[in-house]
Amino acid sequence: MAEIINGKELAQKIRLEVKEEVKELKAKGIEPKLSVIMVGTDKASEVYVRNKSKACEEIGIAFEEFLLSEETTMEELLALIEKLNNRKDIHGILLQSPIPKHLDIRKAFNSIDYKKDVDGFHPINVGKLALGEEGFVSCTPAGVMEMLKEYNIEIQGKKAVVIGRSTIVGKPLAQLLLNANATVTICHSKTQNIEQIAKEADILVAALGKPKFVTASMVKNGAVVIDVGINRTAEGKLIGDVDFENVEKIASYITPVPGGVGPMTVAQLMKNVVKAAKLTIA
Amino acid sequence: MAEIINGKELAQKIRLEVKEEVKELKAKGIEPKLSVIMVGTDKASEVYVRNKSKACEEIGIAFEEFLLSEETTMEELLALIEKLNNRKDIHGILLQSPIPKHLDIRKAFNSIDYKKDVDGFHPINVGKLALGEEGFVSCTPAGVMEMLKEYNIEIQGKKAVVIGRSTIVGKPLAQLLLNANATVTICHSKTQNIEQIAKEADILVAALGKPKFVTASMVKNGAVVIDVGINRTAEGKLIGDVDFENVEKIASYITPVPGGVGPMTVAQLMKNVVKAAKLTIA
Repeated sequence: MAEIINGKELAQKIRLEVKEEVKELKAKGIEPKLSVIMVGTDKASEVYVRNKSKACEEIGIAFEEFLLSEETTMEELLALIEKLNNRKDIHGILLQSPIPKHLDIRKAFNSIDYKKDVDGFHPINVGKLALGEEGFVSCTPAGVMEMLKEYNIEIQGKKAVVIGRSTIVGKPLAQLLLNANATVTICHSKTQNIEQIAKEADILVAALGKPKFVTASMVKNGAVVIDVGINRTAEGKLIGDVDFENVEKIASYITPVPGGVGPMTVAQLMKNVVKAAKLTIA
Repeated sequence: MAEIINGKELAQKIRLEVKEEVKELKAKGIEPKLSVIMVGTDKASEVYVRNKSKACEEIGIAFEEFLLSEETTMEELLALIEKLNNRKDIHGILLQSPIPKHLDIRKAFNSIDYKKDVDGFHPINVGKLALGEEGFVSCTPAGVMEMLKEYNIEIQGKKAVVIGRSTIVGKPLAQLLLNANATVTICHSKTQNIEQIAKEADILVAALGKPKFVTASMVKNGAVVIDVGINRTAEGKLIGDVDFENVEKIASYITPVPGGVGPMTVAQLMKNVVKAAKLTIA
């Protein structure tokens, strides 16, 4: 039976560390502050934003929310981002996705000051990651790397297979694993023989958003299995991209859903806000 | 026997196309111009810069060279870049590497206006590539993609293995192949069982800089083999990273060295300069 990677516990540990850092920053007169922009109403987004706001409160990070109506124009959205870019009291700017379809989300992300881009979505930060330079790294992949580190899972020289090539998870995680010297393969909807490729992985990451996509027959004995999926069943239960019950029997380590990667994302966001606040000192 | 991918011929074809575009631009009053900065003396760099200058001349692109002494300071280099960023008559800025070790080449690349970054080395352009946005793509990987396209080599769903993870070739080429729907694996010095991984590739790219590293036993029957290596033997002969003589017998397509990827790099640079010049119209 696999050892369960407890993301909830590790996230809590990180949050306590960040809390200490916030105290130190405040002693220096810097009050870290995160701003979140939401456009329109989206049930899932509301839950995510509430979780971020609660985490900020617990850690001592100031939080300011901007709720824009469904009818917001691109000009209005860009004007708000510009204002937040210029506000010295705000260190992090997060635009919660999705936003209404008439708005260009990529243009919006690109207009956020890359030094306040705590989500790591700005091209400069995406590029810095690929170049191995210091910058903001997308929270979910950064959280996955923290998990591997916490559980002393060897990465160098290992075969890592990432299923899913989103710009938020799959691609940046592939970069991080590559920077950590894994031999990385990225699979996606056009991949042929995905079962066979997955089965060769020492570290297998499922980040495609299909419930129970990764079955036991796709997993090598003793592999490390990271489940980034968050899918909701008809009964309202959260399940991942991995058939946990059966994969657990053959993996060496596995992340559960919920309580795995999910909590790590928020914890990494908190770390990024503190990092952004520290940038204002240097 | 493999079909030889004739990079010299394809590069010439592209150069003729670019020449036409330059004519059209000039008719509109825009004279595309490339500036090249060289710091110190490096025999190989001198050859590369001469080739670029000759290509510009042939195509009708204006060319201005800036030769800085070995003792140039970082401030002086950045000041020159700043000047070229601001000069309206210059569309492309290329900093020839290597530069002396006391200078920070990454800082220099990052200071080039990303709209004049015809080498595609600026974090914004690297990030845009990963995000699938329009930007400047590093010339060698872009040239490899052109070769695959010209020879109607199917990429979607194919297994592509890239050996080498440089920021100039390996990493951006992996992104391009991924964007073209290949299942991509990146190998490097820490990869284990590299022979076995290479042998599974439908498209195998050698970009590590080790003479004849890829032997016939590492290549699948009928694979497409792209050789990005340029190594000089003791006798002064150019050879690639692939054991051409033996791999040629089992590959379906193969690029020679010289006359393969090399000429494509310069042709792509010319394309990028014209692209940069066009940006000034929009």
